Amino acid sequence: MLFYDCSTAPNPRRARMFIAEKGLQIETHEVSIAKGEQLQADFRAVNPRATLPVLVTDEGTVLTENLGIAAYLEARFPEPPLMGRSADEQGLVLMWNAIAEQQGGAPIADVLRNTHPAFENRAIPGPIDYAQVPEIAERGRARVAAFFDLLETRLQDSPYLAGDRFTLADITTFVFVDFARVIKMRPEARHGAALTWLDKIKARPSAQL
Amino acid sequence: MLFYDCSTAPNPRRARMFIAEKGLQIETHEVSIAKGEQLQADFRAVNPRATLPVLVTDEGTVLTENLGIAAYLEARFPEPPLMGRSADEQGLVLMWNAIAEQQGGAPIADVLRNTHPAFENRAIPGPIDYAQVPEIAERGRARVAAFFDLLETRLQDSPYLAGDRFTLADITTFVFVDFARVIKMRPEARHGAALTWLDKIKARPSAQL
Repeated sequence: MLFYDCSTAPNPRRARMFIAEKGLQIETHEVSIAKGEQLQADFRAVNPRATLPVLVTDEGTVLTENLGIAAYLEARFPEPPLMGRSADEQGLVLMWNAIAEQQGGAPIADVLRNTHPAFENRAIPGPIDYAQVPEIAERGRARVAAFFDLLETRLQDSPYLAGDRFTLADITTFVFVDFARVIKMRPEARHGAALTWLDKIKARPSAQL
Repeated sequence: MLFYDCSTAPNPRRARMFIAEKGLQIETHEVSIAKGEQLQADFRAVNPRATLPVLVTDEGTVLTENLGIAAYLEARFPEPPLMGRSADEQGLVLMWNAIAEQQGGAPIADVLRNTHPAFENRAIPGPIDYAQVPEIAERGRARVAAFFDLLETRLQDSPYLAGDRFTLADITTFVFVDFARVIKMRPEARHGAALTWLDKIKARPSAQL
């Protein structure tokens, strides 16, 4: 296997944490998004869609998108299970993973990529340049605040997002909550359960990578 | 099990097709988004996040989000497999599902929900009202056009999105491509492989529901 990573971006971090939680050592190539290396011909030959992370499997399949990589690794290396044991738990893992992507990751990216000068004409990841739409930022901030409230409600009832065990849903949510620092947002004092959970995930060795 | 559906919206349709492809008969409650029933107290008691579809499992777990529902049903009713057989195929299914959601479903929703009068103050699904940001529409249309091009490239190489077999990735992509009619977009003559695939999926009994 061969893993294409980028140490500064949240989506590759999700895959990196998943690999570490599986206890796997995978040969890794760093691709610098800051230098635009994901848009260069040699990486585009691997992933024409010019996104990270990428995992090339032993069979030569090129997997992009975190869920594609996670599903492959979960099937090949079932222990420890990170995508649920029972059918109900498998459902809850992908449910909370989707909520974190759509209600957390998406609005954080909306704010950052549509307002920060470093993303001028790079409002959407991938090979095509799209102009920023800064009007989206205010709504994005409101959505991130609502996401923190939603996490608090859930984590007052459950030690981890999908239930009693650490799963992929915690990785995804943790990475996005941590990444919200780039738009200067973080859970506040009233999010006590979320902050406790955040500290617990942050202490895991996989979160140090 | 109990399935909460909405016959007019694309996301419930994805779950409805998945259930039909599994050959399952599940007791179904229709919730009218047109009438705002998803925001009313009796449905909010089931799903406080006020979105559809919802599946309540035999164990009483309330699953929202299409991937949550699909993962649960795939685990409980493995035949026919709709989320991949080999590890590689499992990876490809969730990879193409994610691409369809982020590069197809998301920009279609961006255009529709930020410009159509029916979605005034309802730019984002869920319990919180968000104002429309019509500036996003132009970029959304360009992204949908790029998504059709991406599908064409993939489907020139592969009979189905994830490989040789019909999977969840085809359901998701089909529903979004079909739904693009609401923003008056569809694959064009140059998307020959995509149109052939579209006709093939449209002919399945599950697509008639």
